[in-house]
Amino acid sequence: MSTALLEATIAAIQPLDQAWLAQAQERLDQLTKPRGSLGRLEELAAWYVAVRQEPLPTIKKKVVVIFAGDHGVVAEGVSAYPQEVTFQMVANFVRGGAGINVLARHVGAEVQIVDIGVNHEFTGMPGLLNRKVAPGTRNLAREAAMRREDAVAALTVGIEVAQAAVAAGGDILATGEMGIGNTTPAAAVAAAFTGQPAAAVTGRGTGVDDATYQHKVQVIEQALALHRPDPQDPLGVLAAIGGLEIGGLAGLMLGAAAARRPVLVDGFIATAGALVAVRLCPAVRDYLQAAHQSAENGHQVMLADLGLRPLLQLDMRLGEGTGAALGMFLVEAGLRIYREMATFAEAGVSDKDSGEPAAAGNSVHGGPPH
Amino acid sequence: MSTALLEATIAAIQPLDQAWLAQAQERLDQLTKPRGSLGRLEELAAWYVAVRQEPLPTIKKKVVVIFAGDHGVVAEGVSAYPQEVTFQMVANFVRGGAGINVLARHVGAEVQIVDIGVNHEFTGMPGLLNRKVAPGTRNLAREAAMRREDAVAALTVGIEVAQAAVAAGGDILATGEMGIGNTTPAAAVAAAFTGQPAAAVTGRGTGVDDATYQHKVQVIEQALALHRPDPQDPLGVLAAIGGLEIGGLAGLMLGAAAARRPVLVDGFIATAGALVAVRLCPAVRDYLQAAHQSAENGHQVMLADLGLRPLLQLDMRLGEGTGAALGMFLVEAGLRIYREMATFAEAGVSDKDSGEPAAAGNSVHGGPPH
Repeated sequence: MSTALLEATIAAIQPLDQAWLAQAQERLDQLTKPRGSLGRLEELAAWYVAVRQEPLPTIKKKVVVIFAGDHGVVAEGVSAYPQEVTFQMVANFVRGGAGINVLARHVGAEVQIVDIGVNHEFTGMPGLLNRKVAPGTRNLAREAAMRREDAVAALTVGIEVAQAAVAAGGDILATGEMGIGNTTPAAAVAAAFTGQPAAAVTGRGTGVDDATYQHKVQVIEQALALHRPDPQDPLGVLAAIGGLEIGGLAGLMLGAAAARRPVLVDGFIATAGALVAVRLCPAVRDYLQAAHQSAENGHQVMLADLGLRPLLQLDMRLGEGTGAALGMFLVEAGLRIYREMATFAEAGVSDKDSGEPAAAGNSVHGGPPH
Repeated sequence: MSTALLEATIAAIQPLDQAWLAQAQERLDQLTKPRGSLGRLEELAAWYVAVRQEPLPTIKKKVVVIFAGDHGVVAEGVSAYPQEVTFQMVANFVRGGAGINVLARHVGAEVQIVDIGVNHEFTGMPGLLNRKVAPGTRNLAREAAMRREDAVAALTVGIEVAQAAVAAGGDILATGEMGIGNTTPAAAVAAAFTGQPAAAVTGRGTGVDDATYQHKVQVIEQALALHRPDPQDPLGVLAAIGGLEIGGLAGLMLGAAAARRPVLVDGFIATAGALVAVRLCPAVRDYLQAAHQSAENGHQVMLADLGLRPLLQLDMRLGEGTGAALGMFLVEAGLRIYREMATFAEAGVSDKDSGEPAAAGNSVHGGPPH
């Protein structure tokens, strides 16, 4: 597997231009509200403008990308659900019955489902993108989850999916995933990159009991002791203790950032993907927003490491991209504020600094300004 | 002013029936997700079902009601903006250029604007509901903000506006307000009901400087010392140190609860209205959700008193109903989860408790069940 696309993508990612942020805030400060009074909605608007580098950008197409993969580590008994739930849920996604389908419809987003590593041969699944790198990972508690070249392949799939989404008109992307057992590699990746002990970054996933939770922590400790992953080698970390969908998620973020498209990062698994992406290319962080604070223990450790502040705190822990879908709606809310609110001058409203009524404009309206 | 409607409305409000909450959670637990994994979205869905007392309710019409009023206390120099901004912003609402108009459009809600006490004679404002009780309050630092009968009148306007919104098909209501200077009466009301000192519940409103902030705290202390409002007499508190729009907001909550319609409470001012409503009738609390945690200092004191946990923390402090509009969208998200997600049986997904694949249903779909 060539690393050419990965290297070219990383090389193309530029840090956010602060001048665009300042220009966007200047417009926000002319709108009929006290300065800064829409808080994070204003921040999201300025961020979107700066990512897109357009003075009046739009959001026409929102895409949630779900990477699905299986995990050899389920042999250790770390999940409350059997492995076949991964492919059963992929079928549920394709038929539109899962949580992410409902929330994507609610926010007006499309859903793209990618089989990057499910341990199942799908037939008759129109709409499912087959980019299977391998039929699941190996058991990371006993051996490397994947070969280094499979890690490159997973990242490459993510980059190519991002490129395709952008080519199809995607303005903003959200990350989703499905993979029974995947909180275990995600926690292992978090421990490897943040230096925190396994217990500090391990949660109960889909809901394991106390004994299984203790066992899960031990499995992660065992894997870290076995592989001694080097945080300076993100590809090595991903290969030893990661997952195929975690690689896909990281690749999606890199591909989106290279094309100047913003990404809403979902919860625990997606944030592990963000750690891989940011360790490969620190500038990618500027293109990410943390959609929500997962109820999964350890998520806040990863977010703090990345310097990302979650938009929503709704005690969600489903994954699939459910938090990220809601996050896209908030970005759109901020952008509509930026585009559609009247300015003090347009509305003839007195601004605080003058204390005098502004000149009434002749183009007061609710639609987008010119 | 007769208190007949107020009394009849309070008498009609019943506490939420816990059996409806349990029945809704039973359905939520059959959906293809780990139990409880959609956190507060599930809580909102069950709440909506229990408020409406329907097994499969819908949300067809969402209404944001904005009460606008002026405040005599602006004579004390407590606001960063001149009083005419109240009527200028009402005109902005009518023309669709304000923040609440944008966010209401974004969430698909209608906006109803009520002049309950603006110090301005409006002409040629189609869409503005004239229910003016008085052209603003008196200066609460020197005399009672309003007569007791005006407080009853303001509450009655709120109840009647709620009744009209329900009669027009409103499924869910959100509270909004506009009134230059209204963080001062809101903070005074908060201090009177919670027993906290003025400094603990007073914020910077639209953005006053340090000296003005200190002065604002002193004005509120002076008002509390002058009127000695009795928290056991909510009408007396509202009359002495409240505002006409605060009365309207409280009335809206009472009227909605009596008609079993849920209400999203916006920020600082609306929560002061909620305190008045809950002190008049404790059961009204079951019909309220706090949409967001305002950046205004003291909001959390009021929310803690009411036992309400805010849905959003977005550093917003605009008012107008902007947080409440976003909150309605989250309720709708929860309800769609409840209505549209496939069950384990429908989707043929293995549940955790059985470990065996569920029988594949013959009605897997993304639309509402039955």
